[in-house]
Amino acid sequence: METNLQWNVYNGHCPTRMVLDRIADKWTVLIIGRLADGTKRFSELRKAIDGISQKMLTGTLRGLERDGIVSRRLYASVPPRVEYSLTELGQSLVSMVSSVRTWAETHIEQVLEARATYDAGQARSAASPATGR
Amino acid sequence: METNLQWNVYNGHCPTRMVLDRIADKWTVLIIGRLADGTKRFSELRKAIDGISQKMLTGTLRGLERDGIVSRRLYASVPPRVEYSLTELGQSLVSMVSSVRTWAETHIEQVLEARATYDAGQARSAASPATGR
Repeated sequence: METNLQWNVYNGHCPTRMVLDRIADKWTVLIIGRLADGTKRFSELRKAIDGISQKMLTGTLRGLERDGIVSRRLYASVPPRVEYSLTELGQSLVSMVSSVRTWAETHIEQVLEARATYDAGQARSAASPATGR
Repeated sequence: METNLQWNVYNGHCPTRMVLDRIADKWTVLIIGRLADGTKRFSELRKAIDGISQKMLTGTLRGLERDGIVSRRLYASVPPRVEYSLTELGQSLVSMVSSVRTWAETHIEQVLEARATYDAGQARSAASPATGR
Protein backbone atom coordinates (compact mmCIF):
# COMPACT_ATOMS: atom_id res chain seq x y z
CA MET A 1 0.00 0.00 0.00
CA GLU A 2 1.41 3.34 -1.07
CA THR A 3 1.24 6.37 1.18
CA ASN A 4 1.24 9.70 -0.56
CA LEU A 5 2.96 12.19 1.71
CA GLN A 6 0.79 15.02 0.44
CA TRP A 7 -2.32 13.56 2.13
CA ASN A 8 -2.81 14.97 5.60
CA VAL A 9 -5.99 14.76 7.69
CA TYR A 10 -4.82 17.80 9.70
CA ASN A 11 -5.26 19.95 6.60
CA GLY A 12 -8.92 20.95 6.55
CA HIS A 13 -8.99 21.08 2.76
CA CYS A 14 -7.42 17.67 2.23
CA PRO A 15 -9.88 15.07 0.90
CA THR A 16 -8.69 12.68 3.62
CA ARG A 17 -10.62 14.84 6.10
CA MET A 18 -13.89 13.76 4.41
CA VAL A 19 -12.81 10.13 4.63
CA LEU A 20 -12.00 10.59 8.31
CA ASP A 21 -15.47 12.05 8.78
CA ARG A 22 -16.99 8.99 7.10
CA ILE A 23 -15.14 6.37 9.13
CA ALA A 24 -14.87 8.18 12.48
CA ASP A 25 -18.62 7.97 12.83
CA LYS A 26 -20.75 6.00 15.30
CA TRP A 27 -23.17 4.66 12.68
CA THR A 28 -20.39 3.66 10.30
CA VAL A 29 -18.72 1.72 13.11
CA LEU A 30 -21.97 -0.06 13.97
CA ILE A 31 -22.93 -0.86 10.36
CA ILE A 32 -19.48 -2.21 9.44
CA GLY A 33 -19.54 -4.37 12.58
CA ARG A 34 -22.80 -5.99 11.49
CA LEU A 35 -21.78 -6.43 7.85
CA ALA A 36 -18.54 -8.06 9.05
CA ASP A 37 -20.72 -11.09 9.91
CA GLY A 38 -21.98 -11.29 6.32
CA THR A 39 -24.43 -9.84 3.79
CA LYS A 40 -27.56 -8.25 5.26
CA ARG A 41 -30.83 -6.87 3.97
CA PHE A 42 -31.80 -3.32 4.87
CA SER A 43 -34.44 -4.53 7.34
CA GLU A 44 -31.97 -6.91 9.00
CA LEU A 45 -29.46 -4.10 9.47
CA ARG A 46 -32.10 -1.80 10.87
CA LYS A 47 -33.17 -4.44 13.38
CA ALA A 48 -29.57 -5.28 14.32
CA ILE A 49 -28.64 -1.66 15.11
CA ASP A 50 -30.94 -0.52 17.87
CA GLY A 51 -31.89 3.15 17.68
CA ILE A 52 -30.87 3.89 14.08
CA SER A 53 -33.56 5.69 12.11
CA GLN A 54 -34.54 4.60 8.60
CA LYS A 55 -33.26 7.94 7.27
CA MET A 56 -29.90 7.66 9.05
CA LEU A 57 -29.40 4.06 7.89
CA THR A 58 -30.32 4.94 4.29
CA GLY A 59 -28.02 7.98 4.26
CA THR A 60 -25.08 6.24 5.90
CA LEU A 61 -25.34 3.20 3.61
CA ARG A 62 -25.47 5.47 0.56
CA GLY A 63 -22.34 7.31 1.72
CA LEU A 64 -20.53 4.04 2.41
CA GLU A 65 -21.56 2.72 -1.02
CA ARG A 66 -20.36 5.89 -2.71
CA ASP A 67 -17.01 5.63 -0.93
CA GLY A 68 -16.57 2.01 -2.04
CA ILE A 69 -16.83 0.54 1.47
CA VAL A 70 -20.21 -1.19 1.07
CA SER A 71 -21.73 -2.78 -2.01
CA ARG A 72 -25.45 -2.80 -2.68
CA ARG A 73 -27.11 -5.50 -4.71
CA LEU A 74 -30.66 -5.30 -5.99
CA TYR A 75 -32.58 -8.53 -6.70
CA ALA A 76 -35.51 -8.17 -9.07
CA SER A 77 -37.81 -10.30 -6.93
CA VAL A 78 -41.35 -9.27 -5.92
CA PRO A 79 -41.01 -7.28 -3.73
CA PRO A 80 -37.50 -6.27 -4.83
CA ARG A 81 -34.81 -7.31 -2.37
CA VAL A 82 -31.74 -5.17 -1.60
CA GLU A 83 -28.70 -6.65 0.06
CA TYR A 84 -25.63 -4.94 1.49
CA SER A 85 -22.17 -6.34 2.02
CA LEU A 86 -18.64 -5.12 2.65
CA THR A 87 -16.33 -4.61 -0.30
CA GLU A 88 -12.66 -5.54 -0.02
CA LEU A 89 -11.99 -1.92 1.03
CA GLY A 90 -14.72 -2.25 3.67
CA GLN A 91 -13.17 -5.49 4.95
CA SER A 92 -9.95 -3.57 5.59
CA LEU A 93 -11.84 -1.51 8.21
CA VAL A 94 -13.28 -4.45 10.16
CA SER A 95 -10.59 -4.99 12.78
CA MET A 96 -10.16 -1.26 13.37
CA VAL A 97 -13.85 -0.54 13.97
CA SER A 98 -14.04 -3.64 16.12
CA SER A 99 -11.31 -2.15 18.38
CA VAL A 100 -13.32 1.05 18.63
CA ARG A 101 -16.44 -0.84 19.77
CA THR A 102 -14.41 -2.94 22.18
CA TRP A 103 -12.75 0.15 23.68
CA ALA A 104 -16.18 1.64 24.41
CA GLU A 105 -17.37 -1.59 26.04
CA THR A 106 -14.24 -2.21 28.11
CA HIS A 107 -13.65 1.36 29.33
CA ILE A 108 -17.21 2.39 30.05
CA GLU A 109 -16.84 2.06 33.85
CA GLN A 110 -13.85 4.43 33.83
CA VAL A 111 -15.74 6.92 31.64
CA LEU A 112 -18.83 6.82 33.85
CA GLU A 113 -16.68 7.31 36.95
CA ALA A 114 -14.90 10.29 35.36
CA ARG A 115 -18.26 11.82 34.41
CA ALA A 116 -19.62 11.47 37.93
CA THR A 117 -16.50 13.15 39.36
CA TYR A 118 -16.63 15.95 36.78
CA ASP A 119 -20.36 16.58 37.29
CA ALA A 120 -19.95 16.62 41.09
CA GLY A 121 -17.15 19.20 40.71
CA GLN A 122 -19.33 21.36 38.46
CA ALA A 123 -22.20 21.12 40.96
CA ARG A 124 -19.87 22.15 43.80
CA SER A 125 -18.56 25.17 41.86
CA ALA A 126 -22.12 26.21 41.07
CA ALA A 127 -23.22 25.88 44.71
CA SER A 128 -20.33 27.86 46.20
CA PRO A 129 -18.65 29.97 43.51
CA ALA A 130 -16.61 31.84 46.15
CA THR A 131 -14.42 28.80 46.91
CA GLY A 132 -12.97 29.03 43.43
CA ARG A 133 -11.07 32.26 44.15
CA MET B 1 -9.24 -5.21 31.99
CA GLU B 2 -12.64 -6.63 32.80
CA THR B 3 -15.38 -6.85 30.21
CA ASN B 4 -18.88 -6.72 31.53
CA LEU B 5 -21.07 -8.76 29.21
CA GLN B 6 -24.05 -6.52 29.86
CA TRP B 7 -22.40 -3.64 27.98
CA ASN B 8 -23.35 -3.63 24.33
CA VAL B 9 -22.92 -0.76 21.88
CA TYR B 10 -25.65 -2.28 19.68
CA ASN B 11 -28.20 -1.53 22.38
CA GLY B 12 -29.27 2.09 21.80
CA HIS B 13 -29.89 2.63 25.53
CA CYS B 14 -26.55 1.25 26.68
CA PRO B 15 -24.19 3.96 28.01
CA THR B 16 -21.44 2.52 25.80
CA ARG B 17 -23.30 4.04 22.82
CA MET B 18 -22.52 7.52 24.20
CA VAL B 19 -18.87 6.57 24.59
CA LEU B 20 -18.83 5.28 21.01
CA ASP B 21 -20.28 8.60 19.92
CA ARG B 22 -17.50 10.42 21.76
CA ILE B 23 -14.59 8.42 20.35
CA ALA B 24 -15.95 7.66 16.85
CA ASP B 25 -15.77 11.35 16.03
CA LYS B 26 -13.53 13.20 13.59
CA TRP B 27 -12.58 15.99 16.00
CA THR B 28 -11.85 13.58 18.84
CA VAL B 29 -9.53 11.63 16.55
CA LEU B 30 -7.70 14.81 15.49
CA ILE B 31 -7.42 16.25 19.03
CA ILE B 32 -6.13 13.00 20.55
CA GLY B 33 -3.58 12.72 17.76
CA ARG B 34 -2.17 16.16 18.58
CA LEU B 35 -2.20 15.63 22.37
CA ALA B 36 -0.36 12.33 21.83
CA ASP B 37 2.71 14.49 21.08
CA GLY B 38 2.42 16.20 24.48
CA THR B 39 0.60 18.90 26.45
CA LYS B 40 -0.86 21.75 24.38
CA ARG B 41 -2.44 25.11 25.05
CA PHE B 42 -5.87 25.83 23.57
CA SER B 43 -4.40 28.17 20.95
CA GLU B 44 -1.76 25.60 19.95
CA LEU B 45 -4.43 22.95 19.45
CA ARG B 46 -6.59 25.31 17.44
CA LYS B 47 -3.66 26.13 15.15
CA ALA B 48 -2.64 22.47 14.82
CA ILE B 49 -6.10 21.33 13.70
CA ASP B 50 -6.91 23.22 10.55
CA GLY B 51 -10.61 24.04 10.13
CA ILE B 52 -11.80 23.48 13.70
CA SER B 53 -13.89 26.33 15.06
CA GLN B 54 -13.28 27.78 18.51
CA LYS B 55 -16.73 26.57 19.58
CA MET B 56 -16.16 23.02 18.32
CA LEU B 57 -12.74 22.79 19.97
CA THR B 58 -14.10 24.14 23.27
CA GLY B 59 -17.08 21.76 23.23
CA THR B 60 -15.08 18.69 22.21
CA LEU B 61 -12.37 19.36 24.83
CA ARG B 62 -15.02 19.80 27.51
CA GLY B 63 -16.64 16.49 26.56
CA LEU B 64 -13.27 14.72 26.54
CA GLU B 65 -12.43 16.22 29.94
CA ARG B 66 -15.79 15.13 31.36
CA ASP B 67 -15.21 11.60 30.08
CA GLY B 68 -11.76 11.42 31.69
CA ILE B 69 -9.86 11.30 28.39
CA VAL B 70 -8.26 14.75 28.56
CA SER B 71 -7.12 16.70 31.61
CA ARG B 72 -7.23 20.48 31.76
CA ARG B 73 -4.86 22.49 33.89
CA LEU B 74 -5.31 26.16 34.64
CA TYR B 75 -2.25 28.25 35.50
CA ALA B 76 -2.96 31.45 37.39
CA SER B 77 -0.60 33.53 35.27
CA VAL B 78 -1.53 36.87 33.70
CA PRO B 79 -3.23 36.22 31.36
CA PRO B 80 -4.32 32.81 32.74
CA ARG B 81 -2.93 29.86 30.80
CA VAL B 82 -4.89 26.67 30.18
CA GLU B 83 -3.13 23.47 29.12
CA TYR B 84 -4.58 20.20 27.91
CA SER B 85 -3.04 16.75 28.04
CA LEU B 86 -4.13 13.15 27.71
CA THR B 87 -4.97 11.20 30.86
CA GLU B 88 -3.96 7.56 31.19
CA LEU B 89 -7.38 6.64 29.79
CA GLY B 90 -6.76 9.01 26.87
CA GLN B 91 -3.35 7.42 26.24
CA SER B 92 -5.10 4.08 25.77
CA LEU B 93 -6.83 5.56 22.70
CA VAL B 94 -3.71 6.84 20.95
CA SER B 95 -2.76 3.86 18.81
CA MET B 96 -6.38 3.23 17.80
CA VAL B 97 -7.07 6.79 16.63
CA SER B 98 -3.72 6.80 14.89
CA SER B 99 -4.86 3.76 12.84
CA VAL B 100 -8.03 5.61 11.92
CA ARG B 101 -6.07 8.60 10.62
CA THR B 102 -3.63 6.37 8.80
CA TRP B 103 -6.47 4.42 7.16
CA ALA B 104 -7.90 7.68 5.80
CA GLU B 105 -4.52 8.76 4.45
CA THR B 106 -3.57 5.41 2.91
CA HIS B 107 -6.95 4.54 1.33
CA ILE B 108 -7.92 7.95 0.01
CA GLU B 109 -7.10 7.09 -3.61
CA GLN B 110 -9.39 4.05 -3.50
CA VAL B 111 -12.18 6.11 -1.93
CA LEU B 112 -11.85 8.90 -4.51
CA GLU B 113 -11.89 6.35 -7.33
CA ALA B 114 -15.02 4.68 -5.90
CA ARG B 115 -16.73 8.08 -5.62
CA ALA B 116 -15.94 8.99 -9.20
CA THR B 117 -17.36 5.67 -10.42
CA TYR B 118 -20.47 6.03 -8.26
CA ASP B 119 -21.10 9.62 -9.33
CA ALA B 120 -20.64 8.73 -13.01
CA GLY B 121 -23.19 5.92 -12.60
CA GLN B 122 -25.67 8.29 -10.96
CA ALA B 123 -25.17 10.81 -13.76
CA ARG B 124 -25.76 8.10 -16.39
CA SER B 125 -28.99 6.96 -14.70
CA ALA B 126 -30.19 10.55 -14.50
CA ALA B 127 -29.38 11.19 -18.19
CA SER B 128 -31.10 8.06 -19.51
CA PRO B 129 -33.50 6.69 -16.90
CA ALA B 130 -35.04 4.27 -19.42
CA THR B 131 -31.91 2.10 -19.53
CA GLY B 132 -32.51 1.17 -15.93
CA ARG B 133 -35.71 -0.81 -16.70
